[in-house]
Amino acid sequence: MKAAVVHDFAEPLRVEEVPDPTPGDEQVLVRVEACGLCHTDIHAAHGEWPVKPEPPFIPGHEGVGIVEGVGPGNPHGLEVGMRVALPWLGYACGDCRYCNSGRETLCEKQINTGYGMDGGFAELAVGYARHVVRVPDEVDPLDAAPLTCAGVTTYKAVKESGARAADRVAVFGAGGLGHLAIQYARVTGAEVVAVDVNDERLATATELGAARVVNAKAEDPVAAIQAMGGADVAISTAVSPVAFEQAIGALARGGRLICVGLPAENDITVPIFQTVLGGLSLKGSIVGTHHDLEEVFELHRRGETRVLRAERRLEDVNEAIAEVLDGSAPEPRLVFDLQAVGPETTSGDRAGAVA
Amino acid sequence: MKAAVVHDFAEPLRVEEVPDPTPGDEQVLVRVEACGLCHTDIHAAHGEWPVKPEPPFIPGHEGVGIVEGVGPGNPHGLEVGMRVALPWLGYACGDCRYCNSGRETLCEKQINTGYGMDGGFAELAVGYARHVVRVPDEVDPLDAAPLTCAGVTTYKAVKESGARAADRVAVFGAGGLGHLAIQYARVTGAEVVAVDVNDERLATATELGAARVVNAKAEDPVAAIQAMGGADVAISTAVSPVAFEQAIGALARGGRLICVGLPAENDITVPIFQTVLGGLSLKGSIVGTHHDLEEVFELHRRGETRVLRAERRLEDVNEAIAEVLDGSAPEPRLVFDLQAVGPETTSGDRAGAVA
Amino acid sequence: MKAAVVHDFAEPLRVEEVPDPTPGDEQVLVRVEACGLCHTDIHAAHGEWPVKPEPPFIPGHEGVGIVEGVGPGNPHGLEVGMRVALPWLGYACGDCRYCNSGRETLCEKQINTGYGMDGGFAELAVGYARHVVRVPDEVDPLDAAPLTCAGVTTYKAVKESGARAADRVAVFGAGGLGHLAIQYARVTGAEVVAVDVNDERLATATELGAARVVNAKAEDPVAAIQAMGGADVAISTAVSPVAFEQAIGALARGGRLICVGLPAENDITVPIFQTVLGGLSLKGSIVGTHHDLEEVFELHRRGETRVLRAERRLEDVNEAIAEVLDGSAPEPRLVFDLQAVGPETTSGDRAGAVA
Amino acid sequence: MKAAVVHDFAEPLRVEEVPDPTPGDEQVLVRVEACGLCHTDIHAAHGEWPVKPEPPFIPGHEGVGIVEGVGPGNPHGLEVGMRVALPWLGYACGDCRYCNSGRETLCEKQINTGYGMDGGFAELAVGYARHVVRVPDEVDPLDAAPLTCAGVTTYKAVKESGARAADRVAVFGAGGLGHLAIQYARVTGAEVVAVDVNDERLATATELGAARVVNAKAEDPVAAIQAMGGADVAISTAVSPVAFEQAIGALARGGRLICVGLPAENDITVPIFQTVLGGLSLKGSIVGTHHDLEEVFELHRRGETRVLRAERRLEDVNEAIAEVLDGSAPEPRLVFDLQAVGPETTSGDRAGAVA
Repeated sequence: MKAAVVHDFAEPLRVEEVPDPTPGDEQVLVRVEACGLCHTDIHAAHGEWPVKPEPPFIPGHEGVGIVEGVGPGNPHGLEVGMRVALPWLGYACGDCRYCNSGRETLCEKQINTGYGMDGGFAELAVGYARHVVRVPDEVDPLDAAPLTCAGVTTYKAVKESGARAADRVAVFGAGGLGHLAIQYARVTGAEVVAVDVNDERLATATELGAARVVNAKAEDPVAAIQAMGGADVAISTAVSPVAFEQAIGALARGGRLICVGLPAENDITVPIFQTVLGGLSLKGSIVGTHHDLEEVFELHRRGETRVLRAERRLEDVNEAIAEVLDGSAPEPRLVFDLQAVGPETTSGDRAGAVA
Repeated sequence: MKAAVVHDFAEPLRVEEVPDPTPGDEQVLVRVEACGLCHTDIHAAHGEWPVKPEPPFIPGHEGVGIVEGVGPGNPHGLEVGMRVALPWLGYACGDCRYCNSGRETLCEKQINTGYGMDGGFAELAVGYARHVVRVPDEVDPLDAAPLTCAGVTTYKAVKESGARAADRVAVFGAGGLGHLAIQYARVTGAEVVAVDVNDERLATATELGAARVVNAKAEDPVAAIQAMGGADVAISTAVSPVAFEQAIGALARGGRLICVGLPAENDITVPIFQTVLGGLSLKGSIVGTHHDLEEVFELHRRGETRVLRAERRLEDVNEAIAEVLDGSAPEPRLVFDLQAVGPETTSGDRAGAVA
Repeated sequence: MKAAVVHDFAEPLRVEEVPDPTPGDEQVLVRVEACGLCHTDIHAAHGEWPVKPEPPFIPGHEGVGIVEGVGPGNPHGLEVGMRVALPWLGYACGDCRYCNSGRETLCEKQINTGYGMDGGFAELAVGYARHVVRVPDEVDPLDAAPLTCAGVTTYKAVKESGARAADRVAVFGAGGLGHLAIQYARVTGAEVVAVDVNDERLATATELGAARVVNAKAEDPVAAIQAMGGADVAISTAVSPVAFEQAIGALARGGRLICVGLPAENDITVPIFQTVLGGLSLKGSIVGTHHDLEEVFELHRRGETRVLRAERRLEDVNEAIAEVLDGSAPEPRLVFDLQAVGPETTSGDRAGAVA
Repeated sequence: MKAAVVHDFAEPLRVEEVPDPTPGDEQVLVRVEACGLCHTDIHAAHGEWPVKPEPPFIPGHEGVGIVEGVGPGNPHGLEVGMRVALPWLGYACGDCRYCNSGRETLCEKQINTGYGMDGGFAELAVGYARHVVRVPDEVDPLDAAPLTCAGVTTYKAVKESGARAADRVAVFGAGGLGHLAIQYARVTGAEVVAVDVNDERLATATELGAARVVNAKAEDPVAAIQAMGGADVAISTAVSPVAFEQAIGALARGGRLICVGLPAENDITVPIFQTVLGGLSLKGSIVGTHHDLEEVFELHRRGETRVLRAERRLEDVNEAIAEVLDGSAPEPRLVFDLQAVGPETTSGDRAGAVA
């Protein structure tokens, strides 16, 4: 099969022929139709995080495709022909107190797709049946791909925040994660304030349901949001520590910040006095459970969300990474279309765009 | 009346005669029997916090005494002769969404006793009837005093943490706040780990119900607590940023840190990667509501808690402050005994000590 | 002033001239613009509940109007000229553990508008300033009236239910309360199933956002909803015990029923075996706090809700009651328009109707 | 092996030799040391519940013993020689939204030990490794047996209730379930009121930590508990509908009833008016998860609980059932001691009794 493989953190990925994988015990083999490109894939390919993957490996944790084979043992309800997604949480033990209490994403034995096991930047991929999630027929696989990580991550952050209709929710960052966070916050009935440094993204945020927008280059977001009465909830999808610190500053008394972005610069400064006197809280949230992902797909099926994406060919993986890194990607999310035929896919067209 | 008055942040307090106060609308006049000495009183007297009180003023927010007069308007159930406490939350508006939802300590219109209004370092004090809390007859006023701030603050922190029997709770700091935090954590049935740098305090922590103790000078508390399986809950009563950072490091996945101490050095560093991947949370908690304080007194009445204190005369206020600052105080809390007769009160005896 | 007065539970109301009321301590005088007619007003006028009001009295707890006078004492932020609502919770003590923890509707000292104190079926009414709620300028007083009880009651029920986007919420009864419950459930992002015995109401339910409808005359709602997978949440606004029992039967395992309707026949039968093995829960919810009502008005201001109502003249109060009782009212809610000029108001026009 | 077998719902159990069972996929074989006798076993043996087991079968869902063999597939951490418990939840799918969110006891595919699969009234039993729970070395197997159902059921009920130190918790029924419910409620720091019709049991309740007791034969428990201020939480372990109805009547406003007992007479009557106006709630709770059972054993290891039991020989199973049914059992729980040697075990001695 064809796959984009990391051989060396210092080298570009190589798109090459590799042997087809075989599904092991309680695993399925999936023919990949689409796979999103997440910033985490770039961190993986460059070996930028403390715990590094071991080359050679195939990145990709937003793979979506059709089950083509089922390994021995419990298939956990999957059958050949079903459309499924292969999320970041590739495996969790299923036994520990985290797995059994709705917190499997904290399982200490977890294996991550496209990191600890091969991922979706390939024509075929295997996944543990228990963690592979069915995609409803009505959901376009090119939409399903970004929902598999960017969607579930922000959906879960909103869920963890406890946001509801009477709340003001500030979303810091309106890109790949943020454009979905805005929608999930809006689905709860909350009033959403989008914060970004890019006016185009903020215009999109408004289209997607943000009641107000703040360009953090043009005005101080802390002052701007405090002038509105402060945020009951803030969700930081941004990847700079300053955005987290601004998010804390933007909270109303009793407000809560959910952290989902993972800045390269790891440390943020939290002021204890203001945290204690204001009754503020800060919580980390990582992706979501396989049931959360089912909920994400169901909301999309019901028409509650839109995915803003542009398609790319897997052969262009290094160019796509460059687009993400230099900010030239035309949409919040790039998706590799493994079914694309012909010399190249179109680029820059807004599939699934807001009418 | 006699009172200990701050005239200048740079000068010692003056114990002097001042005019008796008069209870205004919806206020009561209280003859003070006892008043604890909290570190916050020292910050107030020295003008060490960003928002400063205006001299001359009388500190003290752990005053306990007998109602001697009732001003005009709604007495909120109080009558002459009742024993009451005058807590830090001297006034809150009663109308805002915080006041009406169990979060009056976040009221933006609050006035703080011994800070924004005169406090309990005096023979008489006035308090707003709505926020003055009755002390059950069975509770010794010398015990009630430290419960009025140190007690309710740590009780509330434990409540906010959601700690329950199956949890491991690490309490950082085993002094004035900490010795009570240990007991409130223990009351929930949780397994308590006490962390301090003082072996004597840790011995007391064990007497008070801590299942395990860690001397942070002798061993790394992060490693020690992670070796136990990590803390589900940590409560930081310590006043050094490093204790907060250790507390975060000591959390099990999904763990939550409740911050109550207010270090002079305000900033702590939070690692985003570990917070997100570990699903950690951090929350500030400030004192408690007047209903929380009722609960604190009720638990003491039922015999669930012990207050470790030594009595001092109000005349010795500056010496008492010095004892707290140099760590020579013989018990976790010093309490001014306004009813003491004779040349001086005994010192160093362990009133209310664990048998 | 003109008012509709109950002199005898067995007689029709008399629309007559009575002395203007005077605002007492911490009260305001309100010139009523509109007042909704709630079934509870009919129970009050007929003396049908265990604790009865004392004639003569003026019913009405959905009054909306303009502050015309302010009594002595704390005005709680109100001024002459403001538009306000006078809800069922006319007075609560403000001191008890219920009042201070977001549960003032459980205050044991509460006084209810149009029941324990005169209500809004009059040109003028007085209310306790603390419990009178401001109506935003953008909200039509004729909409605000039904929101003042039917709105806040169902909003609170949805809030208590914890419903969120991934849930299926079954609303039993699609009338005065139900047509708003459907909308508040929908605002959370949940999938709403409306159950009623009237096809016209069910058509309206669909217009208002119900994804599915069940006519309980045509099919068994328990079987119908269990076939969908069961309801995570059920809200019973109906006034027959059988609807409550069906609502329990319609729950998925772990499901929760929020009861808001008050059937004349008080007792329902709950099967313990199914409740225990299914982990079901049932909870009562009564109106909402004054902050909940602020949230209700804010959601309406933002365009999240529609009020379906028909206007009536106060002079026609007895005819309006008859319309409600015989089911001939053209809209889910009738509202007395105190500002109507001319021989009679139009009837049957759908103000605020869904486009 | 020797086992007590139900051949016919109308006949006594037969203690006879049957073939040794063999552990299947992901199962373990356990040599039973002790097994408690729960009222549910009697319901099973008599075929008294709507869904009946299929004779011949071996009852018993409080079996405790030593792993003697491990079947093929994932052993879920178990090894030969470990002491384990075989609880009521013999199998759950591990995949559904209930299993993954801390609610595996609601799994629709569950199989129950001693009901849908053979149980612990035998020298050997097999269990699904995922649901078999390790017993700490320090816990006596004769104590562990009743904890395996009576313990975890009441522990979970208290957990579901959210009881904490400031609450008053009324436990209805002070027998096999109740004597443990009282202790778990006490562990939270709450004030416990025990209600029973038997003075001896109430004396035991007091020994176990109940602050107050009410003999429901001597006084009306509703009036008695309302005179104390009402119960914030009630837990009904009793098996008569009237106890449930009294428990509802005994609630303070905002109070919550957790139902665990399963009366033969299934229906209880709930008054809607009082439920709505009082903001009352009622919730069913069934046993607990395997992690809850781990917590139960851990609390016992820490010395937080005492099990009141008397031992019986398995040969005397029918006599033991008779003792439970006629109320003559000398302790709240009878336990079959499979290791007992000699002609018969002692009876009536209070093992594990309160000092």
